[in-house]
Amino acid sequence: MLNVSNVIDRLREIMADETFTQLKDELNAYHVADLADIFQDMKPDERLMCFKLLDLEKAADVIEYLPANLQVEILGDLDEETASRIITRLPHDAAADVLGDMEEDESETYLEKLPHKFSEEVRELLTYNEDTAGGMMNPAVLTVNSDMSVLDVLNYIRTKAEHDRMELYYLYVVDKQNHLLGVVSLRKLLTTSIDTVVEDIMISDIVKLHVDDYSDSVTEEFMKYQYNALPVVDFYNRLKGMITWDDVHDLVQEETTEEIYASSGISTDVVDEDEIISGNILNAIRARTPWLFITLIGEFIAVNVANHYDHTLTALPVIAIFMPLLAGLGGNIGTQSITLMVRGLSTGQITMSTAFNHIIRETFIGFVIGGFFGILVTIVTWGWKHNIELGAVVGAAMIINMTLATIIGTFTPFALKSAKIDPAVASGPVIATTIDVLGLAIYFTLVSVFLMKTI
Amino acid sequence: MLNVSNVIDRLREIMADETFTQLKDELNAYHVADLADIFQDMKPDERLMCFKLLDLEKAADVIEYLPANLQVEILGDLDEETASRIITRLPHDAAADVLGDMEEDESETYLEKLPHKFSEEVRELLTYNEDTAGGMMNPAVLTVNSDMSVLDVLNYIRTKAEHDRMELYYLYVVDKQNHLLGVVSLRKLLTTSIDTVVEDIMISDIVKLHVDDYSDSVTEEFMKYQYNALPVVDFYNRLKGMITWDDVHDLVQEETTEEIYASSGISTDVVDEDEIISGNILNAIRARTPWLFITLIGEFIAVNVANHYDHTLTALPVIAIFMPLLAGLGGNIGTQSITLMVRGLSTGQITMSTAFNHIIRETFIGFVIGGFFGILVTIVTWGWKHNIELGAVVGAAMIINMTLATIIGTFTPFALKSAKIDPAVASGPVIATTIDVLGLAIYFTLVSVFLMKTI
Repeated sequence: MLNVSNVIDRLREIMADETFTQLKDELNAYHVADLADIFQDMKPDERLMCFKLLDLEKAADVIEYLPANLQVEILGDLDEETASRIITRLPHDAAADVLGDMEEDESETYLEKLPHKFSEEVRELLTYNEDTAGGMMNPAVLTVNSDMSVLDVLNYIRTKAEHDRMELYYLYVVDKQNHLLGVVSLRKLLTTSIDTVVEDIMISDIVKLHVDDYSDSVTEEFMKYQYNALPVVDFYNRLKGMITWDDVHDLVQEETTEEIYASSGISTDVVDEDEIISGNILNAIRARTPWLFITLIGEFIAVNVANHYDHTLTALPVIAIFMPLLAGLGGNIGTQSITLMVRGLSTGQITMSTAFNHIIRETFIGFVIGGFFGILVTIVTWGWKHNIELGAVVGAAMIINMTLATIIGTFTPFALKSAKIDPAVASGPVIATTIDVLGLAIYFTLVSVFLMKTI
Repeated sequence: MLNVSNVIDRLREIMADETFTQLKDELNAYHVADLADIFQDMKPDERLMCFKLLDLEKAADVIEYLPANLQVEILGDLDEETASRIITRLPHDAAADVLGDMEEDESETYLEKLPHKFSEEVRELLTYNEDTAGGMMNPAVLTVNSDMSVLDVLNYIRTKAEHDRMELYYLYVVDKQNHLLGVVSLRKLLTTSIDTVVEDIMISDIVKLHVDDYSDSVTEEFMKYQYNALPVVDFYNRLKGMITWDDVHDLVQEETTEEIYASSGISTDVVDEDEIISGNILNAIRARTPWLFITLIGEFIAVNVANHYDHTLTALPVIAIFMPLLAGLGGNIGTQSITLMVRGLSTGQITMSTAFNHIIRETFIGFVIGGFFGILVTIVTWGWKHNIELGAVVGAAMIINMTLATIIGTFTPFALKSAKIDPAVASGPVIATTIDVLGLAIYFTLVSVFLMKTI
């Protein structure tokens, strides 16, 4: 792989020498994906200077690969004429994304400068919710009629597709009112004799998306059927556009990030995911505080449980020192279980129908591991404090705690899912806090019953 | 989306009625991806019965969509003749995967039954490490020579590709010794005039993989360049095969799962990831115990810290009840930071070069949130216990604890990464345990300094 920081050092030297012809040649020789990586690691002024040296086609391609904030930054720094020419060279969906990320009046300026047909199509895309298939699709789709022959289609593509810079994965077969009738893969087109009629090679059981489908069901369909592209239709089955897997790839990564964030109690509901690590600090705080606050309430309950046993603590202060041990291991094994269940439910490896089996299995695992750790802790505590009753109580609390933690960690995601709540949400903090509360209650009960009478 | 459990209920009724013609028609009408979902939720005997009713082509397609354990189960339950016929219909890479998952003698039986050329090619694939590009690639690639015209190529594809059931995404241009010279997209082929020579439309700066590239760099290249397929070459730049994005898609999901597991201290080094939620229970225990054991050692250090202050605990037992509160919130905010950094490093949103900025930013965030929570805790404790010194000590411990937790949570992933250790490994348990130890030390120190002299 390209060593981006080495490349940037080299480019900086060329910039310092002001040998711009060399810089221009060098920059234009990189793959657009590499350029995007390079630009992301540059300072804004370097970025702009280098971007301006790119050929127009290449500049448009690089824009497509860059994250939204850099797209807006670079286009905003260019003169409007150049920026418009770059936007016109983007696929419709990318142009709509870029314009959608700008301020209303700024995007309006560009839309007025763009060629009429292009700007009309982009405007239509902007009417769809950006989290739906309609907001993600590219309206430039190659359509053919069912009575065309393979040769007709080949001749048609040779003129049409290049002109409209369409992406080619499948040919969509439509009737005169643009209703989607079938789909032909390029592979089929290229391997069938040229006089075959499209109707005879098209597939009519079509996997398709609806303009109003939300992004999570779009990714689900792509992941399941593993096509390179899926057609998007409206309520009346009229073909409106196409979504390609590279559009979905970014989305999948974003959804995974949100799932991982959610499981640590970082909320992406109110704050955009990008903002949390590098945007406005206030937004980062807003994303992180809500679940910490709920943890605070939970931990105050734990404090109250402990407070309830203040006479026990006064009589036997040594029992306090084992509290972190019990909470730590309970929280840890509970988090393992919840992680396994949440991820399994998310990838489809675990389904609701097998919930019961998983709960039994995890309980058994929790009991075995808890048993092992409980015995270990009993022996260590006994040897250290020369008090077998204390060792036995700590060990017994450990076994119960760890077993209970696996049960709660396994049960909770299924319960949330069946209540139609995302099982990932705050799974980590919730399990840790619950185990703190229950674990302390169990421990202090055992201490009261078995240790208090012996002193 | 298909409601799988409804479909299975329906299929069960048809099976009960023993109307096998209906069952056969019904099953063969489903999309293979749907059938794979249906089969995964069926009982083994139902699965086998239904699978046997599928047409041969469809059966092979379904096998490709199924997870490894079900592939082996179904093929093992079929008679060898049928199983061989299905395997021959799989793409080479899928056949190699299936045979690689079987016992040595079982796969040998099949390899001997397969057509000679096919079995030779599959045997070659099996020589590559299954975690490398060589082990993932499909050797059936359409190659052309640089002096062919577009028309020649179209004619060639029409005979060759169908016969060898090759996947078509790009055409690879090779010389007589099969060295990779260039690549032509189908799009280019279909939009260029038919008398153009391949040499004039091929791209020679090729993004390619090497047979020995490990799977993580394979997914990295795909994610970065977003191609549908990449060619795989050997040390001498001879074209050996091609990897398509649908092969990579499963791998990406698997890598994400491993990353998520690792962060909760579930080790996938010794145990296969699939085993952990549904395989052998002993393997699940082996995957989960190592990091729990390290947590145990860490928590015993925390226990020792607390034990060191036993006189403080004896004099002021009430301080013990705030231990879970401090550990809980410290662990929680520290986990948030480590989650953000680990994910950012994994997606490339965060790079080592910005480590310092992130540490400063997170420290500030930790201090602001810690300050807010510290003040809150001070007020609540003061109001509750009518002891402002106690409130202030708990609150101050909270601020220091939460700030320190964000610093450690942010710093640790960068430190691990620069030591070439996967930052995800055990991030959750390690941070929680470290915070337990340090948090208790800070809390007891504050208590000793500020509270012990007041009593």
